Order: sequence, then C-alpha cells, then structure tokens
Amino acid sequence: MCARMTEDEFSEWYNRAIEEAELSDKRYPVKGMNVWTPYGWRIMTNIDNAIRRELDGTGHGEVCFPLLVPATEFEKEAQHIKGFSDEVYWVTRAGGKDLDVPLLLRPTSETAMYPIFKLWVRSHADLPLKTYQIVNTFRYDTKMTRSFIRVREIHFFEAHTCHVDFEDAERQIAEDLEIWSRLAKDMALPYITAKRPDWDKFPGAVYTIGFDILMPAGRTIQMASVHQYKTNFSEPYEITYEDENGEHQHVHQTTYGMSERLVGAIIGVHGDEKGIVLPPAIAPHQVVVVPIFKKDEMEEVMEAASALAEELDEAGIRVHLDSRDLRPGEKYYHWERRGVPIRMELGPRDIRNGQVMVAVRDTGEKTPIRREDILDSVERMMADMQYRMLERAEKELRSRIKDMDDIPRGYEIEDIIRVGWCGEEDCATQIETELEVTFLGEDMDLKSPPLPRCTTCGGTSMRTMYVSKTY
Amino acid sequence: MCARMTEDEFSEWYNRAIEEAELSDKRYPVKGMNVWTPYGWRIMTNIDNAIRRELDGTGHGEVCFPLLVPATEFEKEAQHIKGFSDEVYWVTRAGGKDLDVPLLLRPTSETAMYPIFKLWVRSHADLPLKTYQIVNTFRYDTKMTRSFIRVREIHFFEAHTCHVDFEDAERQIAEDLEIWSRLAKDMALPYITAKRPDWDKFPGAVYTIGFDILMPAGRTIQMASVHQYKTNFSEPYEITYEDENGEHQHVHQTTYGMSERLVGAIIGVHGDEKGIVLPPAIAPHQVVVVPIFKKDEMEEVMEAASALAEELDEAGIRVHLDSRDLRPGEKYYHWERRGVPIRMELGPRDIRNGQVMVAVRDTGEKTPIRREDILDSVERMMADMQYRMLERAEKELRSRIKDMDDIPRGYEIEDIIRVGWCGEEDCATQIETELEVTFLGEDMDLKSPPLPRCTTCGGTSMRTMYVSKTY
Repeated sequence: MCARMTEDEFSEWYNRAIEEAELSDKRYPVKGMNVWTPYGWRIMTNIDNAIRRELDGTGHGEVCFPLLVPATEFEKEAQHIKGFSDEVYWVTRAGGKDLDVPLLLRPTSETAMYPIFKLWVRSHADLPLKTYQIVNTFRYDTKMTRSFIRVREIHFFEAHTCHVDFEDAERQIAEDLEIWSRLAKDMALPYITAKRPDWDKFPGAVYTIGFDILMPAGRTIQMASVHQYKTNFSEPYEITYEDENGEHQHVHQTTYGMSERLVGAIIGVHGDEKGIVLPPAIAPHQVVVVPIFKKDEMEEVMEAASALAEELDEAGIRVHLDSRDLRPGEKYYHWERRGVPIRMELGPRDIRNGQVMVAVRDTGEKTPIRREDILDSVERMMADMQYRMLERAEKELRSRIKDMDDIPRGYEIEDIIRVGWCGEEDCATQIETELEVTFLGEDMDLKSPPLPRCTTCGGTSMRTMYVSKTY
Repeated sequence: MCARMTEDEFSEWYNRAIEEAELSDKRYPVKGMNVWTPYGWRIMTNIDNAIRRELDGTGHGEVCFPLLVPATEFEKEAQHIKGFSDEVYWVTRAGGKDLDVPLLLRPTSETAMYPIFKLWVRSHADLPLKTYQIVNTFRYDTKMTRSFIRVREIHFFEAHTCHVDFEDAERQIAEDLEIWSRLAKDMALPYITAKRPDWDKFPGAVYTIGFDILMPAGRTIQMASVHQYKTNFSEPYEITYEDENGEHQHVHQTTYGMSERLVGAIIGVHGDEKGIVLPPAIAPHQVVVVPIFKKDEMEEVMEAASALAEELDEAGIRVHLDSRDLRPGEKYYHWERRGVPIRMELGPRDIRNGQVMVAVRDTGEKTPIRREDILDSVERMMADMQYRMLERAEKELRSRIKDMDDIPRGYEIEDIIRVGWCGEEDCATQIETELEVTFLGEDMDLKSPPLPRCTTCGGTSMRTMYVSKTY
C-alpha cells in the first residue's frame, strides 16, 4: 500500500481484503480461532514449504512433539512460566475424570521438548542438535483479535537447537539471520532487525533479535524472532553432554520462531485498492488463464487455452485454467481480488494473431505476448514482479524510518523512529509514554549512522534504538 | 513378516523395530503421546503428501479448522456425542479463568466444521463441497497404548464432503474407494474391504466401510474408513441449499478418515528380522550411498560417491550419501534397521571396474551394476521392489483368509475368517463371544463365493462377513 492510511481505514481495508480473497473465515464460534479456507491455507503451506527448504537445507530435522505439556514440566523455568502463565489454556478433564496433573496447550514448545532433549543429547557427538516443527500453538491473548495477526490458535514455526558452547550457538543465530533474509525475499517483505531491550526479550532468553515489518497505518509488527538461551533452559531441564575430556557440560540453546503473521504482513504490505497482491514465489496460482469466446467459438478457444495451461504446468508454473461459465470481466475481478500475479487472456483474435494478452497484478499493465515466447516471458515477468514488489516496499519502508534527536511535543508517530539511548530505563520509559510507542530494540541494520546523544536526556548514546507503534 | 508370531512376540519385535529405526520416542511424559523423530516424521509426511496428491487431484480443497470445539456445538448430534463423549479432553480454564463454555479437543471435526459448512453452502452451485484436512486429534483411549497404532494424540486425515443428494454422496464414496486402492499401492498394503455391522459404524453414520489389514500375529487393524451420513448431520447442523426450484434441501454428507496407523501397518506387514522395510514410494531415503575406502583412497572415492549421489538426486531420487566416519559394516547395519530400500556401495575396485554394488533391502540380494546403467537400473529396481512387496504381502493375506461353515470348539483364531450370517444379532454375538473375535463387517471384496448358510444357526445366510481378532 503506497498511500498512508489511518489505523481505522487500514483495519477496514484489511478485513475486507481477506474476506473478498476468501483467505480465512472468522465466523467460527470461538473467539480468535479462525478457519483456514483452501486458498488461504495454500498460501500458508507455500510459505511453510519455503521454510522447510531453508531448514532442511541447513541440516535441521523436522520433528513433531505432543501438543499437551504436563504442568510439572512447564513449571521448571521460572522466567518462562512467568511470561506465559496468564496466557495458557488448561486441559483439566479427560475420559470423564479430572486429571491428576493438568495439561496445558503449548504456547511454544520449550517445556515439551527439553525433557526429551535431555534424553537425546548424551555426548558431544550428538551436537549440534538442530530441529524444527510447524504446529498449532495456543495463547489466550486478551487484546483485540485480528485475522493472522492476533489469534488464539496460532499456526507456528519453531526451531530449537543445542550446541556445545556459546560460540556455536552464536553461529546458529548468524545462520538464522541469513535464513530469514532469504525467506523475506520469497515473501517480498522488507524489514528492520532489532535486538530487543532486556524487558522485552523472550521469557527465559539471554537476548532476543526481532524482525519487524511496517504496516500501512504506521505500526510495526514482529515477523520472526531468534533467541539466545545460553544455559537458561539446559540447567533446569538438565540437558548435558559429555565433552572430549569426559566432563559433563550444559548445552547452549537457541530458538527461532515465526507464525501465520507472515500472511498478514504480505496482505498489509502489498495490498492495493483492488485487494491482496501475492508475490509469485508463494502464490497458490502464479498464472490464471481466462478463455474468451462467443458460443460458437468455445471449442476452438478452450482447446487453445487448455494447451497453454498444460504447457505452463509442465514447465513447473502453478497455473489455473478458469473454465467457469462466467463473463470474462467477472473472472478478472475474482482473481484480482485473490492477488494472482499474472492473468492470461486468450480469445479467437489472439489465437489468430499468435499471441496471448498478459496482465500483471501489481502494475495493472496488460501487454500482448507472442504465443511461442510465452514460457520465457512469463518466467521473466514473475521474476520482475517479485523483485519489483520487494523494491517498492523496501523504498517505502526506508522513507518511513526517521531519526529523532529530541522528543517533540504533540507529535503523532506514524513511522519507525530511531532514537539515541543512554541505556537508562527511565529515558526509555519517558519516550514510550510520551510518544505512545514501543522500544523495538537496538538497530542492527545500521543503514544510517548511529545517533550520538540520548534522545531523552541528551547524554551520550550507548545504542541507537528503533521505536514505533506496534500491533 | 512371513513367519507367524504370537502377539507377545510381535509386540516385542514391533517396539524394538521402532526403537532401532528411531521412528518415534515414547518417553514423553504424557501417556499415549509420543514424539515424532525426524525419520519417522519424514515417512508420515511422505504418506501425507501422497494423500494430498490424491485429494487435490480429485477436486478436494485442503482446509484447516480450529482444534477447539465449544461444548454447545458438540452436543448437536446425539449419536455422535454418545460415541465420543467418554473419550474427549476438555479445556476448562484459560487466561487464568474458568471458561463459560468448556472447549473440547477435536476427536474428529464434524462438530467443528458443520456450523461453518452451514454458512458456506447456500445454493446447489456451491455443491459438491469437497474438503479435507490433516491435523492432530485427541482421544482418551483407555486400552493399552502402542506407537502409531493406539495413541491419544493422533495424526489424522479427514475428508468431509457435501452433496445435493444421496446418489452424489454415493459417487463420492465410490471415488474414496478408488483413492484408497491407489494409496494402498504406494504403501504396498494389501487389505480387505468390510461394510461394518450396524453396531460398529461411525457414531452418526448411516453406514461405514472399513479397510483392514492383517498384522503378523493374526489380528486385523483398521487403516481407513469411509462414512455415508445422508442427512444425519445436516439436519441438526442445518446445512441446506436452495435447489433449482428454489426449495431448501438438506445436503447429503460423507467423510473419510485415515491416521498414523498407516505407519504402524507398514512396519508390521513388511518388517523382517533385521527391522523395518520401507516401500520405495514413501521411504525418506530411497537410496543410501556408502563409500568404502582406506585412508589414502578417501579423496578419490568420496568424489565418485558424491558424483553418484548427485546424479541420482538430479533424477529426482531421494538419495543420502553417508559420509560419516564409521566402518561400512556399521553403516549397513544402521540403514538396514531403517528400512532403506536400496544401498549402493562404492569402493576403489568398483570405480576401476566401472560398477556399483547394489543391495536391495527386502530380498537382501547384492549385485554389481555397471556405473553407466545405474539410473535406469535403480529406477527399475525400486519399481520391482514396490511391486514385490505388495505381491508378497497380498499372497500372505489371501493365504490367511479362511471360510468357516460352523463354529469349531477350542479353536484359536489366528486368521481372518469368513462366516455366513443370517442377519440376527444373536448369531453374531455367539461367534464374537465363542471365538473371541470381532465382526469386521460384510465382505465387499468377494474374491471367494459367498457362504450360503449362517455359520452359527445354519439358516440362510444374508451376508458373508469377515471376522477376526483386532487391535
């Protein structure tokens, strides 16, 4: 979205875009638990599969741990339980009886996995242990729910790794940053990288790095986060290994999380007045073929349209032939609202002229392409669109990051602000309160020079911090 | 498994085979909830993807409904709640408070989906509605748990369809039978098809068809089931459509279920004294390449082995190069226990002779193959193995189906028995009690002629029924 919007305008647009694209149905009778429709689920699984490719390719094994965690395991790490205990769902009855030990629905899987990691890790030869899973998690969030962005049953990705020492865990975090940068390209999502302030790190972590994107109404939203645990969990869960000298050491751990918010971000960052726009890399249909004919031309056109769709399909392009009994204009409207990257129109005149009309969703441009060039052209057009979407959004993001040397009065924050920070919590609190923003964390991108002075007190700045309104 | 085993022998073998192949970890601290390890999960997802290909190819859309179902929705279909109410897990607390309406963890998703189907189906143009999902479900089963076969968190496939009338729903069931026959080939699982007796149909169904396989110790186990609901659910859930005359009609519904039991069946039906044997179609690694060398030959051999693995990978074969620092014999042992279909051994002498030694898991045969023929050969060998596994198991199954004209005394049932049945429940009960077996249902395969007389009373047989011991 290029034009600035108020939060109300965005909210209305967002909900309508999701409804018209049929991505999710929020009429399910439990608040914050939505139904994934076939089209929305296909976008999500395309993203999941991109994640799988990255994680499998970096030596992670996909696992699947149980959903239910005994209260007794959950209570082992003090910070962690403090962070999540207000948000958990409890199973207290089963098989007609009260359970002796209540079971909670995982809000995240540290407490389910680590008793087993204790059994899996014996010696240094078992390390690094690199695992991930893609599962449903549950958080009883009390804020207003919003499809994909704030829900109570969350489609969740989590990687969990164990390492011989802190340095190896740090290397894992460096790998995670690279993985994220590649995934963000698939989704055409530009982002900022922020090391969260201590008071906002993941419960139990030593530090947390978050990747945030900017939504049209000027608020940021966390897309992914990476956590360094050191031995904070391996100590209470007793995950140790025997080193080469026969001594027992605690493993160092990291985690990495993402969720269905990725879908919400793609909708928000790339949508326009016609609805959602999908990056070709994750679109369920990359190309839709619409045949155009009068009654007596049907056979000829349908045959040519089928041949075209088949040729694209064989080349590995996700193509859909729309042969419904509807007027072409209705079909255009239908697929535009669903954000399909490329539409091909084929009528008798196109067949005679040896061409296909090709419309591109993001620019709206429509050009005739010679039939024999169609494969090469469509592949180039998709690559161009993928690049163009990222570049436009990147430019928009960069234009909305501003440095602030002192706290202005009566200023409504609509962007990402960089501030200097002396490191005193009071100075942070003052900015958060006066500007009604959140400290996202230390600017790790450093595409602009650091700020020399604390924006609040004018003292020497220790770190340059991102702040913004958030969801 | 060719040799007959007692249930105890099988049980011991089964647990050890799973442990040695590292398919699942049952040390998770909640009974009946196991951890999927990377190797086991890869087998399961290969099966899931075979299911997806079949369902997508027959016009089903993949959806994902919420896990939690409000008690109020669950209670709408009387037979259904009666069938499941003893088995459900209840969420009664969340966010630190008791819930007004308790939520149950889906044992299956009729009661989650049908309030939404009511909204999705408006007119005959919305039909048929064909959906499926692959999700976690929960049943508090009180019998002894067993990995993949009887667990409390179940990895579950369920298809749900709505149709204009009974005939169209019947056509869906015919399609389901075809889908199953193709999937069973991928898993090399021979089966019997039984229309369940009325007292054993799915809670709420008009009729149920089950596909059962025979495990080595002579018990059968249900692999998949298809259910005709007619309007049993659409009436309480008010799922109606406007027909072409503008009248409101209730939809006719079917469902189709499968679960992680498929993995258990593959282990049981195909395993041998060395452990599990995986059909190539669903094996995580179809080929493992083991390089063999002395220290000074390492570079040459690793290069050739990498080139071999790469060539297979490029041809779309799932290949793994085992470059660990272990003796070849240890590697053979490792991969045999994991049931990898084909092992390739490559040493300096093989390289000089322009050949690769190829061992096949099911027969144990080892033959040299010319290096330049390796692609063609391995593809043929995999196809042969897939066929051979199914044929052997099919022969074993057929040899263990026996007709019984009257109830013998003191006879221990170790096979699938076909009996004649007059239709009186008393006659069925007598067989079930005296032989300690279960009526699986009416023989729908009819590979042998029907039995003319009721095995219990000698009266005219109305149906030929399968009976067996079951899990």
